Amino acid sequence: MSYKTKVSRNGNIAKLQAGYLFPEIGRRKAAHMLKYPDAQVISLGIGDTTEPIPEVITSAMAKRALGLSTIEGYTGYGAEQGEKQLRAQLASTFYSNLGIEEDDIFVSDGAKSDISRLQVLFGSNVTMAVQDPSYPAYVDSSVIIGQTGEFQKDIEKFGNIEYMKCTPENDFFPDLSKVSRTDIIFFCSPNNPTGSAASREQLTKLVNFAKDNGSIIIYDSAYAMYVSGDTPKSIFEIPGAKEVAIETASFSKYAGFTGVRLGWTVVPKELKYSDGFPVAKDFNRIVCTGFNGASNIAQAGGLACLSPEGLQAMHEVVGFYKENTKIIVDTFTSLGFTVYGGIHAPYVWVHFPGRSSWDVFSEILEKTHVVTTPGSGFGPAGEGFVRVSAFGHRNNVLEACRRFKELYK
Amino acid sequence: MSYKTKVSRNGNIAKLQAGYLFPEIGRRKAAHMLKYPDAQVISLGIGDTTEPIPEVITSAMAKRALGLSTIEGYTGYGAEQGEKQLRAQLASTFYSNLGIEEDDIFVSDGAKSDISRLQVLFGSNVTMAVQDPSYPAYVDSSVIIGQTGEFQKDIEKFGNIEYMKCTPENDFFPDLSKVSRTDIIFFCSPNNPTGSAASREQLTKLVNFAKDNGSIIIYDSAYAMYVSGDTPKSIFEIPGAKEVAIETASFSKYAGFTGVRLGWTVVPKELKYSDGFPVAKDFNRIVCTGFNGASNIAQAGGLACLSPEGLQAMHEVVGFYKENTKIIVDTFTSLGFTVYGGIHAPYVWVHFPGRSSWDVFSEILEKTHVVTTPGSGFGPAGEGFVRVSAFGHRNNVLEACRRFKELYK
Repeated sequence: MSYKTKVSRNGNIAKLQAGYLFPEIGRRKAAHMLKYPDAQVISLGIGDTTEPIPEVITSAMAKRALGLSTIEGYTGYGAEQGEKQLRAQLASTFYSNLGIEEDDIFVSDGAKSDISRLQVLFGSNVTMAVQDPSYPAYVDSSVIIGQTGEFQKDIEKFGNIEYMKCTPENDFFPDLSKVSRTDIIFFCSPNNPTGSAASREQLTKLVNFAKDNGSIIIYDSAYAMYVSGDTPKSIFEIPGAKEVAIETASFSKYAGFTGVRLGWTVVPKELKYSDGFPVAKDFNRIVCTGFNGASNIAQAGGLACLSPEGLQAMHEVVGFYKENTKIIVDTFTSLGFTVYGGIHAPYVWVHFPGRSSWDVFSEILEKTHVVTTPGSGFGPAGEGFVRVSAFGHRNNVLEACRRFKELYK
Repeated sequence: MSYKTKVSRNGNIAKLQAGYLFPEIGRRKAAHMLKYPDAQVISLGIGDTTEPIPEVITSAMAKRALGLSTIEGYTGYGAEQGEKQLRAQLASTFYSNLGIEEDDIFVSDGAKSDISRLQVLFGSNVTMAVQDPSYPAYVDSSVIIGQTGEFQKDIEKFGNIEYMKCTPENDFFPDLSKVSRTDIIFFCSPNNPTGSAASREQLTKLVNFAKDNGSIIIYDSAYAMYVSGDTPKSIFEIPGAKEVAIETASFSKYAGFTGVRLGWTVVPKELKYSDGFPVAKDFNRIVCTGFNGASNIAQAGGLACLSPEGLQAMHEVVGFYKENTKIIVDTFTSLGFTVYGGIHAPYVWVHFPGRSSWDVFSEILEKTHVVTTPGSGFGPAGEGFVRVSAFGHRNNVLEACRRFKELYK
C-alpha cells in the first residue's frame, strides 16, 4: 500500500466539478485528433489568438531582452506593481479624463492571475454574484477560496453564489430587481461568452445597484478594444464607479499577448471597505507578498503597444478579428440560426434552442472537425448555446464556415 | 464624508504587521537617499541580482520574441503547466536519477508566486511550521490565507504557526524533538537569510520527521546551484522525499532572472493527501484556474539556460556571486565578527550579539550608505543579526567592504 500523508485535502477544491472548462475542451480535441489523425481540425474554441504580434511590439521586447545582457540595460527585480512608465502610459491611454491615476494601476501577468489574487484579497467571508453565463474562472476561483457552498447537481449551481441570468430575454443584462445583494459582483463586458456589451444606461444601473448595496464590482474589460461607438470601454466612464469598482484588463486579445502574459488591474484609491480602509492598500499587500511583477520583457512589449505605432497595430489586429466575427455571424445567420454577440466582441453566441450544448459541441466536432465551446460550460443559462470564437487565421475561419454550411444547410 | 462600501475588510490581511519586509527596506533606502542626495548608496539588501544575463540566454529570448511576429513562430496560450520541452529539460537537468518526471514539474513565473499558489492549494485549515528566521513570504502568505492566529507582539510571532528556531546553537537546523507536528513544513535550504545549507544527514532527519508525522515539506531550493560538495541540492536526493515533499525553485539567482520571472515547482505524483488523493492533481487545478503559464519568452530563456552553454554561463554567474560572498565573509571576519552562511549561499549572516537588528541596519545605512537587511525582519530568532547580500557589482562590494572596515575598525 502506498504512503499517504496525514494532510487533509482542501475541501473547497474538492467541491469543483470535473476539469476546468478549457483544459477539458483541450482533452476532447486531443481525443478527436487521435480518432481522426488525418482530419484538419480547426479550433474556434478556447479563444486563443492566432495572428502574429505586430513587429513594432516584438522588436521592443527583443531589444529589452538583448539589453539585459549589458551593464546599462540590465535590471533585476522590478516594482511588484509594474514599471512606473508603463503604469503612467496605461493611465493616460485608457483612463484619460476618467480620474484614474498611475498609482491606481497594478500591472500583472494577465487577468486570470489577477482574478485569483482578487479572490485572495477578499477571502472566504464575502458573497459573490456572477453573470450566468460567464468566464468560468470567476466561479471556480470563488469555490477554491471558500466563498461557496457545495455544487447542486439538479440546478448546476454552487450554493451561496448569486447567478445573474443573462439571456436574450433580458438583452443579456441581469434583471437587478431580482438580484440579491452580494459583497462582490463579477461583471464582464463585452461579455465572454455571450459577446454582448452593456450599454451606458445598463452600466449606470449596475453602478447604482452596487452603490445602493455597498457592493464591489469586479469589472472584466478584457475585450474593451473590440467596442465601437458610444458603448463604454471602461466601467470608470460611469460616474461614481471609482467608489464601487475594480477593473481588470489585458493585452492578450489586442496584441496577441496570450502567451507573452501581460495585463493590469485598476483599484481606485476611492474604493473603501466598510471601515473606510482603502481596498488598494490591501491589494498592494497581496501583490507584494505573492507576486514579483510581470516579466520585464513583457512590460517592454506593453509599453510598445501603447506607442502611436503600437496602438495603430493593435487596432489592426482587433479589426482583423472583428472581420472574422462578421464572417461567422453572417454564416450562422444565413443558415437560419439566431446569433448574439459578435459586434463589440470576438465571440459569436449561437442559439440551438432545445438542444444540449455539449451535444451540439460534439456534433460539430465530429462532423466538421471544428472545435467550439459549449455554452453550458459557462453556466446553466448557457445551455442551448455554443460559443464560436473569431480567433483564427482567415482561411481557417472561412473553411470552418464552409463546413458549418455543409453541416447545417 | 467619502463613500464606503459595505464589504468587510479581509480580517486575515488586517493581521499582517507593517509592510512586507523588502518594500519597507525600499522605503527606508528612498528616505535615506532624500536625506543624502549626494551619497553613493550601495544596496546589499534585498538580494537583487546585478550582473547581466549571459548572451546565450538573452539571444534565445530575443529570437523567440521576434519569432512571435511570424506566422510560423507565433504561439498563443501555452500550457498552464509550462512548455513540454522545458519541463522535460528541467527534469533531466536537475532531477536525473531522482525519479522526478516531466509531468511532476510545473513551470511558473517565480517561487514567490508559487508559494502563494501553494497556500491557496492547502487552504486555511492546515497548520504550518517555518524556520525562524526565514524568507517572510512563507509566514505572510500563511497569514493571508487564514492559517494563523493574531500577531503576538510580546513574542513577535503569529499564533498557530510553529516557529522552528535556527541559530548557531543548533547549527541552524531545528531541534525536531521540540517541534510540534504540523501539516505543512516550509524549509528553505540553502537558507535565506542565514545562508546555511542543511546536510544530507539533517535533511534525512527532516524527511523522516515529516514521514512520521504525515506532514508535507515545501522545500524552497532557490539557491541550490550555490551548493558545492556532497550537500544535497534537492530534497529529492533524500530517499522517500517524493512521498512527503514539494520543491520550489527559480532561475532568478542563477541567470539573473529576477526581472524576467521564471521558476518551477515539483509536485511528485507520489505525494498524497490523507484520503489518498494526489496533491499534484489539485495543484494542477489551482494552476489551471488561476494562472496561464509563464511568459513564453521567459520560457525560451529557461530552455537556453539548460543548454550546455547556458549551464556553463549560469555556473559562471553563480561563481561570480560566490566570490563576492567570500570578500564579504573575509571582511567581517577580519573585523572580528562571527559570520555564518556564505559558503553554499549568496548571503552572509553577520552576528551583532546583544544589538537590535534594525539599529545595526540603520547604523550601517547612516554611516556607510550601504543597505543591508535586518535579521529580525525574517523572524524573532534573526534578532541580533544582519544579512549582507552578495548580489552586487564587484566594485560596489569592494567599496562596501572598505566602508565596513572604516566603520568597524
